[in-house]
Amino acid sequence: MTEKIPVAVLGGTGAVGQRFVSLLADHPWFEIVSVTGSKRSEGRQYGEAVRWHLSTEIPPMVREMQVDRGDEGPKGAQLLFSALPARVALETEPQLAEEGYIVCSNASSHRMGTDIPLLIPEINADHLTLIERQRDLRGWSGLIVTSPNCSATGIVFPLKALDDAFGVSQVHAVTMNAISGAGYPGVASIEIYDNVIPYIRDEEVKIAEETRKLLGRLSGETIEPAEMAVSAQANRVPVMDGHLAALSIGLKKATDVEGVEATLAAFGGVEGLPSAPSHPLIVRSEENRPQPRLDREAQDGMAVSVGRVQPCSVLDFRMVTLVHNTVRGAAGGALLNAELLVAEGYLGEAARELASA
Amino acid sequence: MTEKIPVAVLGGTGAVGQRFVSLLADHPWFEIVSVTGSKRSEGRQYGEAVRWHLSTEIPPMVREMQVDRGDEGPKGAQLLFSALPARVALETEPQLAEEGYIVCSNASSHRMGTDIPLLIPEINADHLTLIERQRDLRGWSGLIVTSPNCSATGIVFPLKALDDAFGVSQVHAVTMNAISGAGYPGVASIEIYDNVIPYIRDEEVKIAEETRKLLGRLSGETIEPAEMAVSAQANRVPVMDGHLAALSIGLKKATDVEGVEATLAAFGGVEGLPSAPSHPLIVRSEENRPQPRLDREAQDGMAVSVGRVQPCSVLDFRMVTLVHNTVRGAAGGALLNAELLVAEGYLGEAARELASA
Amino acid sequence: MTEKIPVAVLGGTGAVGQRFVSLLADHPWFEIVSVTGSKRSEGRQYGEAVRWHLSTEIPPMVREMQVDRGDEGPKGAQLLFSALPARVALETEPQLAEEGYIVCSNASSHRMGTDIPLLIPEINADHLTLIERQRDLRGWSGLIVTSPNCSATGIVFPLKALDDAFGVSQVHAVTMNAISGAGYPGVASIEIYDNVIPYIRDEEVKIAEETRKLLGRLSGETIEPAEMAVSAQANRVPVMDGHLAALSIGLKKATDVEGVEATLAAFGGVEGLPSAPSHPLIVRSEENRPQPRLDREAQDGMAVSVGRVQPCSVLDFRMVTLVHNTVRGAAGGALLNAELLVAEGYLGEAARELASA
Amino acid sequence: MTEKIPVAVLGGTGAVGQRFVSLLADHPWFEIVSVTGSKRSEGRQYGEAVRWHLSTEIPPMVREMQVDRGDEGPKGAQLLFSALPARVALETEPQLAEEGYIVCSNASSHRMGTDIPLLIPEINADHLTLIERQRDLRGWSGLIVTSPNCSATGIVFPLKALDDAFGVSQVHAVTMNAISGAGYPGVASIEIYDNVIPYIRDEEVKIAEETRKLLGRLSGETIEPAEMAVSAQANRVPVMDGHLAALSIGLKKATDVEGVEATLAAFGGVEGLPSAPSHPLIVRSEENRPQPRLDREAQDGMAVSVGRVQPCSVLDFRMVTLVHNTVRGAAGGALLNAELLVAEGYLGEAARELASA
Repeated sequence: MTEKIPVAVLGGTGAVGQRFVSLLADHPWFEIVSVTGSKRSEGRQYGEAVRWHLSTEIPPMVREMQVDRGDEGPKGAQLLFSALPARVALETEPQLAEEGYIVCSNASSHRMGTDIPLLIPEINADHLTLIERQRDLRGWSGLIVTSPNCSATGIVFPLKALDDAFGVSQVHAVTMNAISGAGYPGVASIEIYDNVIPYIRDEEVKIAEETRKLLGRLSGETIEPAEMAVSAQANRVPVMDGHLAALSIGLKKATDVEGVEATLAAFGGVEGLPSAPSHPLIVRSEENRPQPRLDREAQDGMAVSVGRVQPCSVLDFRMVTLVHNTVRGAAGGALLNAELLVAEGYLGEAARELASA
Repeated sequence: MTEKIPVAVLGGTGAVGQRFVSLLADHPWFEIVSVTGSKRSEGRQYGEAVRWHLSTEIPPMVREMQVDRGDEGPKGAQLLFSALPARVALETEPQLAEEGYIVCSNASSHRMGTDIPLLIPEINADHLTLIERQRDLRGWSGLIVTSPNCSATGIVFPLKALDDAFGVSQVHAVTMNAISGAGYPGVASIEIYDNVIPYIRDEEVKIAEETRKLLGRLSGETIEPAEMAVSAQANRVPVMDGHLAALSIGLKKATDVEGVEATLAAFGGVEGLPSAPSHPLIVRSEENRPQPRLDREAQDGMAVSVGRVQPCSVLDFRMVTLVHNTVRGAAGGALLNAELLVAEGYLGEAARELASA
Repeated sequence: MTEKIPVAVLGGTGAVGQRFVSLLADHPWFEIVSVTGSKRSEGRQYGEAVRWHLSTEIPPMVREMQVDRGDEGPKGAQLLFSALPARVALETEPQLAEEGYIVCSNASSHRMGTDIPLLIPEINADHLTLIERQRDLRGWSGLIVTSPNCSATGIVFPLKALDDAFGVSQVHAVTMNAISGAGYPGVASIEIYDNVIPYIRDEEVKIAEETRKLLGRLSGETIEPAEMAVSAQANRVPVMDGHLAALSIGLKKATDVEGVEATLAAFGGVEGLPSAPSHPLIVRSEENRPQPRLDREAQDGMAVSVGRVQPCSVLDFRMVTLVHNTVRGAAGGALLNAELLVAEGYLGEAARELASA
Repeated sequence: MTEKIPVAVLGGTGAVGQRFVSLLADHPWFEIVSVTGSKRSEGRQYGEAVRWHLSTEIPPMVREMQVDRGDEGPKGAQLLFSALPARVALETEPQLAEEGYIVCSNASSHRMGTDIPLLIPEINADHLTLIERQRDLRGWSGLIVTSPNCSATGIVFPLKALDDAFGVSQVHAVTMNAISGAGYPGVASIEIYDNVIPYIRDEEVKIAEETRKLLGRLSGETIEPAEMAVSAQANRVPVMDGHLAALSIGLKKATDVEGVEATLAAFGGVEGLPSAPSHPLIVRSEENRPQPRLDREAQDGMAVSVGRVQPCSVLDFRMVTLVHNTVRGAAGGALLNAELLVAEGYLGEAARELASA
């Protein structure tokens, strides 16, 4: 492949934006041609404007780029990765879609829109058909596809596997979320150090709603949310990266721990997408795994890890699931969505061929 | 009161032992006359033998004491506080009870014994009547009373209030336990730093069993465990002190959030015991409380705090509860048990009078 | 004493302001009658306006107070404790002094003013005579007294003892500062977690300048800074409270480790002030002390702890010193200054008598 | 290259041993054929015996290996990487050298031996000539080469650059060491959490002695230690990886900050060794770098980062230096030494050709 598909990162100086920049640095299909930022950053060199939080260096090519204006479509790229704050994304993303841009968004603003795919390629690639309705309804030449909340992402992988096999009727989730999930400045150190904060604004509602949408079924032109009760309680813990969730699950069909583990282990990946992990759902057999520090980097942060499968005396089974919140649960998830869009031809035949070359 | 009741701390150099020493330093009824330790510590000055972990100074009187042998009854004290390791307590505590000692134990070894009170004065003071059976059965002149697991302690307070008012049918608990719960050396720093460990050996079974025993009813000469399903998943988080638990609770009678909060807030304390908090169960109304760092010291660490009472879409209500694991959940709990024994006359009339003076 | 001296806390909702409120809650001489705050807080109840970070409860009396305007002198109190941000304090404090208020400030704005005492009662109480010059020069009926930078406070105690005994020619300090030193929101958790930040804005200059002023000698109407080279490098470490500093010190007269330790241990406190520690400088003999978590609460956080006194192969002696940065190094220090002002009669004879009663 | 040089890791289940295993997993020259462990581990599968602490997976090839006996030479490998505890290494390493093994050790036991190279290829490759004397003296067919203490490694890189250019007369170092430096179980979490421990056993002496040996000059058959005063104070901070040191340095020739920075930046790497970083000494120009979390992974953890170069009012210049303590400061350092031995022909002509192919 001699040329790459030009892309832009919207809101590229924030915590998720940095992760996009980092993941796109050596991407086989994509090449960053523009990074946009807030008014404060506009016109400055990216390397000056950003408060870099990753332990890898700022990619040299991006370091020297001038940060573009955030309120207009970037030139030279049709494919946009959005790490915009929710209130900005609310207005900006539809405008960009109307102007013909393909927006792969990590913002929460449009996730629950009835014509907006809330997408995880391994879970609900068929939801992409919503795009037709989206374009019909709104008259857009571009489109918006969203990636889900970081906590929901970690929870929905085991649920999908179990729902397909046994039917899930009830889910009880208690999350232990990493501090990077709140971005920068996010959580003040004097609030979270030596502490747990048993509350994250809006997180519990997002988990419940997005989980049901992700596992919902296409019915005509809309998604019918999965019929399962989802109860979530979200906590912030002093961990850098990696959201852990303790799940209890009620199933419609009977099985045993071995049945659950085998079903989880058999969950397969998608093929042909460079950021897709070969094993998106890793089952740990150790009694004390998954752990954020040891397992968050599994498959370059793109795999969800699950372990401690046990019978539950209240519902049917308990287990613990882990997702790297800023990779699979944010920038990496949106990137994988973009790869699926390319492979499915949403960026045109030339891009598809370039990708499959 | 001119004289105090002489007491000893068994296993006084460990993490819980230190907490006993600290809490007993200026106790109005009790005075430490002996501290026992492992072979390594025996015969050394307490201040030399101990690896002190508290931010208060070692009480001067104890600092100079010589550590006594751990395998024989201390001289000069009938009342013993046991912070012995479980495998040591298993044999040693019954021997001491046989020799006439009153043992208030924090060890797990005998908690589930059918003739051993597992005691929290505010919860099940009536279980003290097991002592008669204990003495009959075993022919002891002394006795053993135990205090429960630290996580179970935090959970059982709101459960007791709700069980009395509405009947609890199901409990789902996910705990986030502090590192001090594992004692010293306990959890290695490179294992828990920037991490959550979703497993604590035996903790989940203890929570389930002890909760049912604590809430159980006296039936003839034994305790009938409460008939409620208890499912627990225990996690270790990087917090120094304070075990948090996210609870979901199923009730037998209908109520609403206000009903739950009012019931919790009305839970009363015991009177006449110096370590008893005036409000053993504090209801927080803020959206993000209780938090370990802010609430663990409530009522000198002897109160349990509960907050975030919400409806649960799987069971009936969710809430978050917090206990100071080494105070109310360990040494402070055992100390309060001892005070109850004194007040009830188990140390004899002289001690009771001394206390009530 | 039947009545107390009414006081106000300026900037009372911030991190240092909260500490003032907490320390003043049961003060034998002082009683809070007003708390001022930013525009955002004005008119709200203190308990609503404050984001409380301490593990003690908000004092009930203050919780219900209405937050007063920050830009005018509070009614009913002549004595003011200032936790104002430096840029606010710069203009506001002199205005208040002009209006007759006695300002005990923790802000950095006026510390280096040639007619402003930078005061630690145990170190340089004689610098109070600057107040005469201050009033002459500025025509104030009130006055300003400042307390030093938190890091400088921890360093200057051992230096004072050694300078008096042997003469200090050179000081090399590397500080490891707690996160509470930056206030709220202060340091973002994703910046300091699992990290050390080897830079704190302006801290190194403050340490050098303030140390020399604190140890300076009255010469006529001004302070002649101590003639010693002070080199400081300041680091932020993930610790909640307690600034540690590794010192190397060059002396003018020869001595040995015992001589240094004996001199430090002999450093005496001031008498008659309720917040003054009996031993302001505690010498630890253990090989691994002082430690922030174990020693910061020494003497209710008002004592500086020093340990690890050793020969230094570059200068003469090395040692490690620790101060509770928000108690002795901030609010507690300013409170002690106020007590000294009362005792010295700066609040009038009635207040002095009230205090000495 | 079709075949690789077989190697063994001694003490391969410990913290440094794991790092060796991880770094050797895909090494272009070396292939692990044996891992030895303590009696507890002997005969078990590596994956079962090890308590893995790294966020990468155990290399599959090693996971299934049986752990060999630690007290005899492994079969099939001449080149050994030693992560043995110091007291074991003291006797075992010389025996192995006598039996003909090439031992690249990270243990401290023999570092200061007058005929033992304490080696960093970029610093003192010429010290390798000690091996002749070592073999002459001891009659060994094998040899021992050691890599220095982790803290000393971070300090000696900037010192070497400055010593060559200006002559270093004095060094004052205060280290802030990561918890991984103490291995497993190492530092208990309840000791280091929310804390700094201002003491690490033997660390200060090692820093002083090893720094002088590393910068020493070959004089006849021995190393004459560099004539510079080195004073070190070592602290443990709650950081996972990355030792930071605040340095103050006295120089023999005058220069300025720019001269220092230019000299540091010009420090060159060695060529032809696969683990050698292209830039072993990275100069950061930001005011708040290097930081452990952001800079420890520089050049795959093999580069030392230095920043905050400033004038010092006590010595001449201050700066801050950072090293990844378990990579460059331990396993990675010893690995680079082995590569140098191969390139220099110490493993024979065949190995040298294999490597240079």
